[in-house]
Amino acid sequence: MSLPDIEFTSADHVIAEIRDMNVKGGSPFGRAAAWAHRWVAREAGPASLEALRRRSADVAAQMAELKPTMATIANVNTLAAECLDDAADLEPARAALEALTARILDHSYAAVDSVAQVAAELIPEGGTVLMHSYSSTLVDSYRVAVQTGRRFGVVCTESRPLRESLNAVRLLREMGCEDVRFVTDAAMAESVRRADVVFLGADSLSVDGSVANKIGSFTVALVARHYGVPVYVLSELLKYDARTAAGASIELEMREPEEVLRADDPVFVPGMTVVNQFFDLTPPELVRGIVTERGVIPPYLVSSHWDALRRELLP
Amino acid sequence: MSLPDIEFTSADHVIAEIRDMNVKGGSPFGRAAAWAHRWVAREAGPASLEALRRRSADVAAQMAELKPTMATIANVNTLAAECLDDAADLEPARAALEALTARILDHSYAAVDSVAQVAAELIPEGGTVLMHSYSSTLVDSYRVAVQTGRRFGVVCTESRPLRESLNAVRLLREMGCEDVRFVTDAAMAESVRRADVVFLGADSLSVDGSVANKIGSFTVALVARHYGVPVYVLSELLKYDARTAAGASIELEMREPEEVLRADDPVFVPGMTVVNQFFDLTPPELVRGIVTERGVIPPYLVSSHWDALRRELLP
Amino acid sequence: MSLPDIEFTSADHVIAEIRDMNVKGGSPFGRAAAWAHRWVAREAGPASLEALRRRSADVAAQMAELKPTMATIANVNTLAAECLDDAADLEPARAALEALTARILDHSYAAVDSVAQVAAELIPEGGTVLMHSYSSTLVDSYRVAVQTGRRFGVVCTESRPLRESLNAVRLLREMGCEDVRFVTDAAMAESVRRADVVFLGADSLSVDGSVANKIGSFTVALVARHYGVPVYVLSELLKYDARTAAGASIELEMREPEEVLRADDPVFVPGMTVVNQFFDLTPPELVRGIVTERGVIPPYLVSSHWDALRRELLP
Amino acid sequence: MSLPDIEFTSADHVIAEIRDMNVKGGSPFGRAAAWAHRWVAREAGPASLEALRRRSADVAAQMAELKPTMATIANVNTLAAECLDDAADLEPARAALEALTARILDHSYAAVDSVAQVAAELIPEGGTVLMHSYSSTLVDSYRVAVQTGRRFGVVCTESRPLRESLNAVRLLREMGCEDVRFVTDAAMAESVRRADVVFLGADSLSVDGSVANKIGSFTVALVARHYGVPVYVLSELLKYDARTAAGASIELEMREPEEVLRADDPVFVPGMTVVNQFFDLTPPELVRGIVTERGVIPPYLVSSHWDALRRELLP
Amino acid sequence: MSLPDIEFTSADHVIAEIRDMNVKGGSPFGRAAAWAHRWVAREAGPASLEALRRRSADVAAQMAELKPTMATIANVNTLAAECLDDAADLEPARAALEALTARILDHSYAAVDSVAQVAAELIPEGGTVLMHSYSSTLVDSYRVAVQTGRRFGVVCTESRPLRESLNAVRLLREMGCEDVRFVTDAAMAESVRRADVVFLGADSLSVDGSVANKIGSFTVALVARHYGVPVYVLSELLKYDARTAAGASIELEMREPEEVLRADDPVFVPGMTVVNQFFDLTPPELVRGIVTERGVIPPYLVSSHWDALRRELLP
Amino acid sequence: MSLPDIEFTSADHVIAEIRDMNVKGGSPFGRAAAWAHRWVAREAGPASLEALRRRSADVAAQMAELKPTMATIANVNTLAAECLDDAADLEPARAALEALTARILDHSYAAVDSVAQVAAELIPEGGTVLMHSYSSTLVDSYRVAVQTGRRFGVVCTESRPLRESLNAVRLLREMGCEDVRFVTDAAMAESVRRADVVFLGADSLSVDGSVANKIGSFTVALVARHYGVPVYVLSELLKYDARTAAGASIELEMREPEEVLRADDPVFVPGMTVVNQFFDLTPPELVRGIVTERGVIPPYLVSSHWDALRRELLP
Repeated sequence: MSLPDIEFTSADHVIAEIRDMNVKGGSPFGRAAAWAHRWVAREAGPASLEALRRRSADVAAQMAELKPTMATIANVNTLAAECLDDAADLEPARAALEALTARILDHSYAAVDSVAQVAAELIPEGGTVLMHSYSSTLVDSYRVAVQTGRRFGVVCTESRPLRESLNAVRLLREMGCEDVRFVTDAAMAESVRRADVVFLGADSLSVDGSVANKIGSFTVALVARHYGVPVYVLSELLKYDARTAAGASIELEMREPEEVLRADDPVFVPGMTVVNQFFDLTPPELVRGIVTERGVIPPYLVSSHWDALRRELLP
Repeated sequence: MSLPDIEFTSADHVIAEIRDMNVKGGSPFGRAAAWAHRWVAREAGPASLEALRRRSADVAAQMAELKPTMATIANVNTLAAECLDDAADLEPARAALEALTARILDHSYAAVDSVAQVAAELIPEGGTVLMHSYSSTLVDSYRVAVQTGRRFGVVCTESRPLRESLNAVRLLREMGCEDVRFVTDAAMAESVRRADVVFLGADSLSVDGSVANKIGSFTVALVARHYGVPVYVLSELLKYDARTAAGASIELEMREPEEVLRADDPVFVPGMTVVNQFFDLTPPELVRGIVTERGVIPPYLVSSHWDALRRELLP
Repeated sequence: MSLPDIEFTSADHVIAEIRDMNVKGGSPFGRAAAWAHRWVAREAGPASLEALRRRSADVAAQMAELKPTMATIANVNTLAAECLDDAADLEPARAALEALTARILDHSYAAVDSVAQVAAELIPEGGTVLMHSYSSTLVDSYRVAVQTGRRFGVVCTESRPLRESLNAVRLLREMGCEDVRFVTDAAMAESVRRADVVFLGADSLSVDGSVANKIGSFTVALVARHYGVPVYVLSELLKYDARTAAGASIELEMREPEEVLRADDPVFVPGMTVVNQFFDLTPPELVRGIVTERGVIPPYLVSSHWDALRRELLP
Repeated sequence: MSLPDIEFTSADHVIAEIRDMNVKGGSPFGRAAAWAHRWVAREAGPASLEALRRRSADVAAQMAELKPTMATIANVNTLAAECLDDAADLEPARAALEALTARILDHSYAAVDSVAQVAAELIPEGGTVLMHSYSSTLVDSYRVAVQTGRRFGVVCTESRPLRESLNAVRLLREMGCEDVRFVTDAAMAESVRRADVVFLGADSLSVDGSVANKIGSFTVALVARHYGVPVYVLSELLKYDARTAAGASIELEMREPEEVLRADDPVFVPGMTVVNQFFDLTPPELVRGIVTERGVIPPYLVSSHWDALRRELLP
Repeated sequence: MSLPDIEFTSADHVIAEIRDMNVKGGSPFGRAAAWAHRWVAREAGPASLEALRRRSADVAAQMAELKPTMATIANVNTLAAECLDDAADLEPARAALEALTARILDHSYAAVDSVAQVAAELIPEGGTVLMHSYSSTLVDSYRVAVQTGRRFGVVCTESRPLRESLNAVRLLREMGCEDVRFVTDAAMAESVRRADVVFLGADSLSVDGSVANKIGSFTVALVARHYGVPVYVLSELLKYDARTAAGASIELEMREPEEVLRADDPVFVPGMTVVNQFFDLTPPELVRGIVTERGVIPPYLVSSHWDALRRELLP
Repeated sequence: MSLPDIEFTSADHVIAEIRDMNVKGGSPFGRAAAWAHRWVAREAGPASLEALRRRSADVAAQMAELKPTMATIANVNTLAAECLDDAADLEPARAALEALTARILDHSYAAVDSVAQVAAELIPEGGTVLMHSYSSTLVDSYRVAVQTGRRFGVVCTESRPLRESLNAVRLLREMGCEDVRFVTDAAMAESVRRADVVFLGADSLSVDGSVANKIGSFTVALVARHYGVPVYVLSELLKYDARTAAGASIELEMREPEEVLRADDPVFVPGMTVVNQFFDLTPPELVRGIVTERGVIPPYLVSSHWDALRRELLP
């Protein structure tokens, strides 16, 4: 229900679109990576299984270099490599890769729908959801709830610097939700206290159950615990960052200070340091559940469910 | 060390400047109220003690109506009324009111200096202070610390909607502080964790030790407790709202939504409700101490110290 | 506004009514003790200051023996003894004791009215109060709020074993409060979560700010902290147990098991031990404020305010 | 070791006994549902696989309608439907359903024994268990402990309104447990503080590790955390409510107010609202472990263990 | 009841004994400083009030330089200076100083006795006290309790590096206390959990209610809160460090690494850094009460009680 | 990288070395047990499968009796018994046991290497690790980090009574780590506050996610939570004590008091009770992750990962 993905026409096309920043959001990145490998499977070039593996690895490396922190790309790259590792000949390898990427794509579309369906159930009739930042999956869950006749209000925290929450405000109003409130990030506490439930998206999920998401998510979750309000994270499992199991920290990207305050803004003070940390980590003890395509799960079980999904995608 | 107060020339002048919003900040409001009553003492008009009392009460009422939530104005009004209640004749009453308001004015200037001196001691050499919003007293404390050769960094949270913190950034840079960082409100947690101490100003102080201050202060203090970082509030005692002892709630002003998002902003969504709560309450268990003109005090003792100050001002 | 006190006709009459358990509640006990000492001052008997002192001490000892844990009786006894200690002759001593007890009685009636007035301010318009057990002062605060046109709901927890809360339910309904809910003690959590404020009475107040009250109060307060709901205790200062400053523990009376389960009840199981602890202690960190005749105070300041009151009663 | 189940003689008999409220407790409901489907397998009627499926579905629907919140019935219904879905012909389907229900029944009896055996190990020699409400599994665990010579005390909280705990008191005394104490729900805190371990039963288990149980369980668990006392929940896995994974909330039944206070009770106050919430939810962070037929498990793993059990029952 | 103080024979003698480290413990330091000023009052030298002031100031400065962090010395020095400031002539000044120091000395001896009497009341019959490090006042409180027939056990944590707790162990055994346990600092948690009360001494008290005491006290208090066990600090008020009101931090002395591990110890590793922080700060929210000569007080009130004491000592 | 294991030459040799306390640490015990069963497989004696089983069981029983609490021995014994249970004839049984024990040994060596590799990733560049007690796996992780050029500091808490941490200090200095600090256990709090991460070893792991480790570990973890510092436990999965799933408590060994204080030490006080609890339990809510050979895992998943490992070792 979110924006349609780009229609990719080759692996290099995928890479180019990623490079040009036309792909946005963890799920679209994962699907783009699947398309890249799908086109590798279809490409005329490789004359041997080995050549196919090299091409696939090369495409994977280019995408990984462009978006090193994106778990969905890393997961698709790993699945593709394992798929080709298991193959014994060129044509069966092509077919296996085609089949794998098809499964990934089908799964990803179905996953976000399924997350939205389940999350919609968590919104109490007549209740209030507080959300931070923007996530198409969150908006999808509201749409499902509206379509089933649920009445509810949504409080959107501003989510500086980019104010992505305004996107949610707009879509909520378009779908007819009447009670859509907008508060600054600093003003979240009073709204959290009065909410029935807090919904967050995810940029990536860690093996210990921590959730990386737009900066401010941790603070929202801390305030929610203070008032005994449950927090749910909505995320397909492909966002699980398997590298964290090997001790890798989820990198919390620092972005351009200009997003926070432009140096040519009249209020800018020469010599000041503007810090633009873009993500933070919410530890699992602040999260009641992660809503995934395999249903609501405790945050501690994210790796178990990823393993199960992995076995489905790569039988 | 903050901006010089307006030179008031009559009680009505004070009221006019308050009405025109040229007076800003709890301490300046208190001093303006003292000037108003001082001019009442000096005015030619009242021909009897009773007439003087009526004039004083009328001036008090006008100021209270303009700024009903401002504790400093309420306190000065109460002191003036009690001063006149104790008098037996017109001229001694004029003299007593003149003397009272002189003491209040002297005290208030000395108080903010004293708070700055003490607070400067709380900044560790080589350490980092995190502050939220703006307060001239906080900036004064940095100035004292800089003048005594202390090196330290300051992190200023944006303090949306009005971004008053940029004022602190500018003044800190002007006084030569090298490490001045600016982070969005949503990004406070990481900076709080790494700070040695958190400094907050106050709009008013409650009998139970709660502190009303710019929206976001509560959340900063909650995060500080999570990481074991001490929080100090800098405030002269005149900001104590004695009405809270009688059960009055500190009113947490809701201001114009336009400060948060203007309706003619392209991103404004028709039908959205923009909420602009301007203050919040930080409960005393999140505050290590309030730095007052009577030194650092536990937040629970604010009423005791106010009583002592009151006896000094109105012997 | 609570039930009128007994009209005592002699010190021995007071002792008899206490012995016959016709006096109930901390405030009535304190006033009864004041009446006892007042009658001592008026009695014909004592022919010397020394005899008056002995008679007063004897009356005090009898009341203390009957109700050893009652702080109000202990306080009145101490005040009476100090009053007589300060006197130099019989007739001035009689007069001083008469005056002291008159001040105590006037103060106590005014105190509970004042507490009710202040507490009524703490009930938000359209809000919900949760209370545990019964206290006439709590009911008085509701009456004040109702008379000033406030609309609010009250949730009364059953307060087993004696279910004193039903008394509050009845009085609330009689004063026209429409939303009066009754829940079992075990069911308190959901109601606490949805309340705006929790009101508790007090049996006695401790120097460290702890509050002794009907069993269950501690648990209510713990649940309230879990959900960030403020707790206020309503109590006149005469309930402060000055003996706790000397290290005495507030004795938490164990009462007859029959109040919980009668041995002739068909469900009684031979050999079972029925425990009827009647009071518990709520530590000060769970209490936002104590509403006293000197206004709302932080629980930590109860001893300071008692000292101030003591100086008023015994100048 | 609990009361023997009813000897059911047909699927309709099961439904009738459920309708007449002769079946009580989550485990007996699950076994009753297994008997209903067993009799479906044995019934003469269905002449085709399709007819058998319809009959099974109809029986399932009737039981579900009578007890919509009962997880054990829902689980057995789902298992039966899946069993018949997998079958290709009528007779093999009958045989499979007979075998499945036999496995469920064998498993359920063994499960509660196994839970009792494991839980008995958690009672320290010379220690004290605090329990809330009644559960035959808890009593079974005491019986195992007594039979192995363990000496221990048990504190039973009253568990208003129905005081089910008196049933545990009686059975504990019958098995010779000497130290059996009974306290009101409001008085739980002091007893929890002095206990070595808290035991709770379960009505149903949620995918996020929350436990629905008799009202008051949450409060007991919160107090236990305050004093650092571990809480164990005793429950067979069949009580896992798989519907929660799809976002369904566990419905917390509101029962008749008469159970709390009858309208013809002299103390009833006309116009009062008596609320009888019968269950509450204890979140997993308050539970050290759930004792299941697969051993002690962290509450977060309940869905994993249910999946494993499901595969055993429906190979 | 602790070791008798040194019999000082001149102000210089006091200084010499301090320099030679023959004075130990906050209370003895305060009394030594009082003796120093007493001898100043008695000395033949000063021929004028000004000369007396200079001599007193010089003695004060020498003691302050030797023990800059010792609050008791600083307090006595300040009292002496204020006493001389108030005097108008030499002989009255001598007399006033003599009287002041006599009051300080009498007060200090009485204070520690009084603290012990009150603290003894806090030990429950048949209960267990856990203490950390050594304090003669703590041992005095046990002596009072033993003399009044109380039976109780004491757990002493080792208090590395100097193991001062062994001194308490010895004295407890000498006074016939039977149950005296000794555990390593790392093993405190299990003992804290089973204790009824925790007793700590104090090196100094801060205006915000924090308590500086032997390293490890903070951790003991944190563990005590985890298990809901109340913590009492035993300290005369002279240990209040009035400089903290002006923003001074209590300096947490770093002592010689050799106390922890000698460089010639065979297990010493060249290049390792041995850190010997000797004190830590326990924040007031971890302390139920401070037992002072003015009774049990909440930690937040230490400055109020010091002010009252100051007025008694320097009327 | 730790000390090489003993070269065992027979099952009886293993038992003798265990009896003589030449085997130390959970992992070496597990490998010793594997060697014992390997030699059973190779021994000439048993003439029948039944005899082999008896011999294996006898060797297992002897090791279990010597070290009843050691989970690694118990696990190897259980695996060996199950391996022989599955065998049908003598020679295949020998071969299976040989293969099993080879897998266990290979796995254990690889496991500790793998844990070290992953844990090294968790040390931030320029950061500080705080560790308690000693564990060769922890030291291995530092070695990996040093070898990859990471610069970091390590704070070692003394870990009385045996001060095992000095072993870590020595090895860290030998590998060139420059910033190695040593603090007493009582002084841990300040160092924990300033650390980036806390590393602990493990003696055994419990089904509920609790970790048994050297006494003091719980307190370190509690302090770490107070300051928001993450705690990781480094442990191979073979330390999982499967008996805890059946309700067994992890036995927290009490060792000889002489390790704490020798009775012939001059400071020993006759009649004092020296308690030497050697291990404590850290509950899972204080642990961010356990670093195992299967990567970082949430503590709650330890049983799931053990089951997976078990299936690998005993296919």
